Amino acid sequence: MRSPRSPQRYTAGSTVFCVTIAGAQGRDHRAAGPVTVWAVPKIPQVQPGDDLTALICTAVGEAELHHGDILVVTSKIVSKAEGRIVQAENREAAITAETLRAVASRPRADGEGLTRIVENRLGIVCAAAGVDASNTAPGTVLLLPQDPDASAAAMRSGIRQRLGVEVGVLISDTLGRAWRVGQTDAAIGSSGVRPLHDHRGGSDSAGRALAVTESAVADEICAMADLVKGKSSGLPVAVVRGLDHLLDPEAPGARALVRTGDQDMFRLGTDEAIAEGFRRAQDGEPLHSSEPLNP
Amino acid sequence: MRSPRSPQRYTAGSTVFCVTIAGAQGRDHRAAGPVTVWAVPKIPQVQPGDDLTALICTAVGEAELHHGDILVVTSKIVSKAEGRIVQAENREAAITAETLRAVASRPRADGEGLTRIVENRLGIVCAAAGVDASNTAPGTVLLLPQDPDASAAAMRSGIRQRLGVEVGVLISDTLGRAWRVGQTDAAIGSSGVRPLHDHRGGSDSAGRALAVTESAVADEICAMADLVKGKSSGLPVAVVRGLDHLLDPEAPGARALVRTGDQDMFRLGTDEAIAEGFRRAQDGEPLHSSEPLNP
Repeated sequence: MRSPRSPQRYTAGSTVFCVTIAGAQGRDHRAAGPVTVWAVPKIPQVQPGDDLTALICTAVGEAELHHGDILVVTSKIVSKAEGRIVQAENREAAITAETLRAVASRPRADGEGLTRIVENRLGIVCAAAGVDASNTAPGTVLLLPQDPDASAAAMRSGIRQRLGVEVGVLISDTLGRAWRVGQTDAAIGSSGVRPLHDHRGGSDSAGRALAVTESAVADEICAMADLVKGKSSGLPVAVVRGLDHLLDPEAPGARALVRTGDQDMFRLGTDEAIAEGFRRAQDGEPLHSSEPLNP
Repeated sequence: MRSPRSPQRYTAGSTVFCVTIAGAQGRDHRAAGPVTVWAVPKIPQVQPGDDLTALICTAVGEAELHHGDILVVTSKIVSKAEGRIVQAENREAAITAETLRAVASRPRADGEGLTRIVENRLGIVCAAAGVDASNTAPGTVLLLPQDPDASAAAMRSGIRQRLGVEVGVLISDTLGRAWRVGQTDAAIGSSGVRPLHDHRGGSDSAGRALAVTESAVADEICAMADLVKGKSSGLPVAVVRGLDHLLDPEAPGARALVRTGDQDMFRLGTDEAIAEGFRRAQDGEPLHSSEPLNP
């Protein structure tokens, strides 16, 4: 097993950094060597107004953050630092306020109301618009960060200033999936990391065009980080080492991972879409409507 | 950074192994220490009839596979070893044969026919039933393995016999997602690894019930492995070290990750479901039908 890449290959200045990653896009997205992920210990409970970058830098200082590392930060602590806290009795109203468009709903397993799958104001399709009550103060719920890509960019810049290292920052959240049981972590904020690796125009080892078009590497990195952060251990930050080839100071944010509107073949739940078609026929409307879907 | 766990904690016998993992379920799913993943070099091109376990054991022998490691094997080489090869001109017929139920379709970006999203005979919802032409011999396409859970179990058993180590085996494929751009790797076959970690009944660090119900850890492990295997580098196998707490000789296969039928709120594409509702109204059928959906 080779040791992780030497940080000496990088300088904090963007010019040299760009040279290092040049040519990576279009090639394979794989790491050249082993990739390691670990959780950062000693992150204290985060309070509204806390300087999250300072807290993280203090905690990781000991673990020696290297140039080219990727920091994966659970969205919950970003929300807490940003004061995105709402009293629990206002939960349903908060979900509605965070919702751009309803996608599907069904009775909750515990019989208390509906699980609402929505497209939230970030374009993310998820349950309850990402409003969550676990790992929050009693009587409160947390909204997702106001602008996770901006939060990631601020953290990346703050880490560069404090520790003198150029890292990538991902903000992760736990999302359900269509067609598959269970939840996985995915990227809702990103800075300095390529969220997607474009294989178009690429070929396999035999020269044939690849069927895969884009690898959602930022989601894969967040999934990896979840395996060391967990859900209930008070470990909201992980460091990933060995993926420095995916760093790119000009990379777009995690918004690039969101598929919305007509591009989304599953923009409405099946029951809701059947009801919509039924209604159109009953109301004498045409099958194909140019109206946006909003059940 | 702590070094990976010592393999001495395990014995190959299932009894001692069970004792080691007892109590893990219900707790957090996170690893106790760092997790490392690397690609196995020197896997030769796989041919129909090859003994894949023998090939992998020869290749990883040098890398010292440890008790508690998880091997992630790209489904493509499993398919090749099983001879699941079809002439390219029969591709559409092969997709139909592998399809249980159509879910959605739309014109392909290259203008050549339709992209068909289907539920395949394994219950997996994916494009073209998983039939793929990249990384295959010219003029041929590959079907998914006949029974990926059984293939994983055979490999796990073969590795125990050849190398004397108890590992987990995951078989991965690259899948698109609803609502998100790009593809990620997920588990389509599993043996000896818990595919889902059940958090129900669990609580956060403050004692509040967790909103997450089940973590799809096998999918997260496959996503992690994709970051070192890539798509075009001839590296179809990865080793993950540090997740031995997720090993469980009694674990169900990856079939447990598949959500089908009424449980799936997105069992039909939006356009297809609207058309179905429209048809029901026009034909004088009730809105809610007990018929299985098959556009």
